[in-house]
Amino acid sequence: MKIIRKINEMQKHASSLKRQGLSIGFVPTMGYLHEGHISLMRQAKTDNDICAISIFVNPLQFSPREDFKSYPRDIKRDLKLARNAGVDIVFFPDAKEMYDADFLSEVYVSKMSGILCGLSRPEHFKGVTTVVSKLFNIVSPDRAYFGQKDFQQARIIEKMVEDLNFPIRIRVMPIIREPDGLAMSSRNVYLSGRQRLEALILNRALSEGARLIRDGIRQSGRIISTIKNLISTVKSAKIDYVEIVDADTLKRKKLLDGKTVILLAVKFGKVRLIDNKIIKV
Amino acid sequence: MKIIRKINEMQKHASSLKRQGLSIGFVPTMGYLHEGHISLMRQAKTDNDICAISIFVNPLQFSPREDFKSYPRDIKRDLKLARNAGVDIVFFPDAKEMYDADFLSEVYVSKMSGILCGLSRPEHFKGVTTVVSKLFNIVSPDRAYFGQKDFQQARIIEKMVEDLNFPIRIRVMPIIREPDGLAMSSRNVYLSGRQRLEALILNRALSEGARLIRDGIRQSGRIISTIKNLISTVKSAKIDYVEIVDADTLKRKKLLDGKTVILLAVKFGKVRLIDNKIIKV
Repeated sequence: MKIIRKINEMQKHASSLKRQGLSIGFVPTMGYLHEGHISLMRQAKTDNDICAISIFVNPLQFSPREDFKSYPRDIKRDLKLARNAGVDIVFFPDAKEMYDADFLSEVYVSKMSGILCGLSRPEHFKGVTTVVSKLFNIVSPDRAYFGQKDFQQARIIEKMVEDLNFPIRIRVMPIIREPDGLAMSSRNVYLSGRQRLEALILNRALSEGARLIRDGIRQSGRIISTIKNLISTVKSAKIDYVEIVDADTLKRKKLLDGKTVILLAVKFGKVRLIDNKIIKV
Repeated sequence: MKIIRKINEMQKHASSLKRQGLSIGFVPTMGYLHEGHISLMRQAKTDNDICAISIFVNPLQFSPREDFKSYPRDIKRDLKLARNAGVDIVFFPDAKEMYDADFLSEVYVSKMSGILCGLSRPEHFKGVTTVVSKLFNIVSPDRAYFGQKDFQQARIIEKMVEDLNFPIRIRVMPIIREPDGLAMSSRNVYLSGRQRLEALILNRALSEGARLIRDGIRQSGRIISTIKNLISTVKSAKIDYVEIVDADTLKRKKLLDGKTVILLAVKFGKVRLIDNKIIKV
């Protein structure tokens, strides 16, 4: 497994792989890898000759009040997990390598970036699309892999790729959950034992929403109320949002039809968790 | 010479050229080609195996009050000129092919895009960087060529390429002038016979500025005043700006040192012309 820390070197290596006719599958990560990431790497390895991942905690996508400094990091463990997953290349730059002191450029997907998670984190998705554009230009993948756990992020990146014509196929892979149903996330380590148990309400509430839809309910308002009420039974849970939107446009839907997503963000103490469920009506 | 109208087809063709180990030099244009464009194509042909150009009048970079609809177009003539210049590929999409009805993405270089020409045309450079990002992703060039005539544009694109790590080398080629000194521009056809003569003041004023600097003057203010006074001797000339800035950062310089540019934009009737001169002090 090759570990590359310089942009220049990564670009040269990618271009040499391309000249050899090898395809590259790419999984961008912020490290602190879990089974969710590993599932993306396995898929990248299945679909491509080469599996490249990046490990970079991107300062641009954290607001000043957020957990950039304390975001969990463990590069030794990450490299071991990557090696076991059959990763060929780890691109692991530092922040100075990625952002010059006079960095001025930004990539933005309007409308989609200012709603849902973008409402409480207005600069977040601009940071994501900017760094992902950079990583795409550095790694030159044929395919890139994102988790459905960050549904809005994945959809925004798909839209960016479509609009800006990146010659890259995006694959969004299913949410990987703990055996008890909690969606895997690097931030789960922040949860106290008690919060960890309380957080199970998220997946349960989404399942209850899905059940209502199976039972024929089509009014988003009713489904959202039920989900909110269920989450509110956990006193420490502070709801950021529960929304039902079109899976392509991310626009709110009053009545469910076609491909729809139930999305939620809820805080347990200082830990903000997100989860979602895709519904085809 | 291959004429390609579909993004998909252009991407496939570029990727096949790459697999053959051929390098691509790229000249993005809005058509109505003149010797300035041709000089870029010749350089692209010299430096690369393949010379590709695009002809696309980009609606995003025109404000509603500007000349998008009336911008001069003559595809037959353009194709003939391109063929004569040894161009291998002309990418010639229509606006629907480039921009879906639900297009949402933008690429922006902050600070540099809101000054000089960006002051009176606030959305202009965002339109330029967005379309150039698209074209780079569609054509996958090794090198791309821009004219120094649009100095600010070229510098913004260099900055974007640097910041976002496009694996592309940018070359900025010298201004090509008519025998009497007027910088070549597709918009010169708008000038009446009289305006055409009056516009000669621009190059003359820039030369006068350069002469002052050769004579030892270093205060930007004095040089700018002299240039403005000279231009004002032509009654129909309406100055948009005359500025002296650092050639890298585009920041204003009170005292000249290092690589500096004198930039100006002046209207003759409805025709807005730009010109500039690089000075090494």
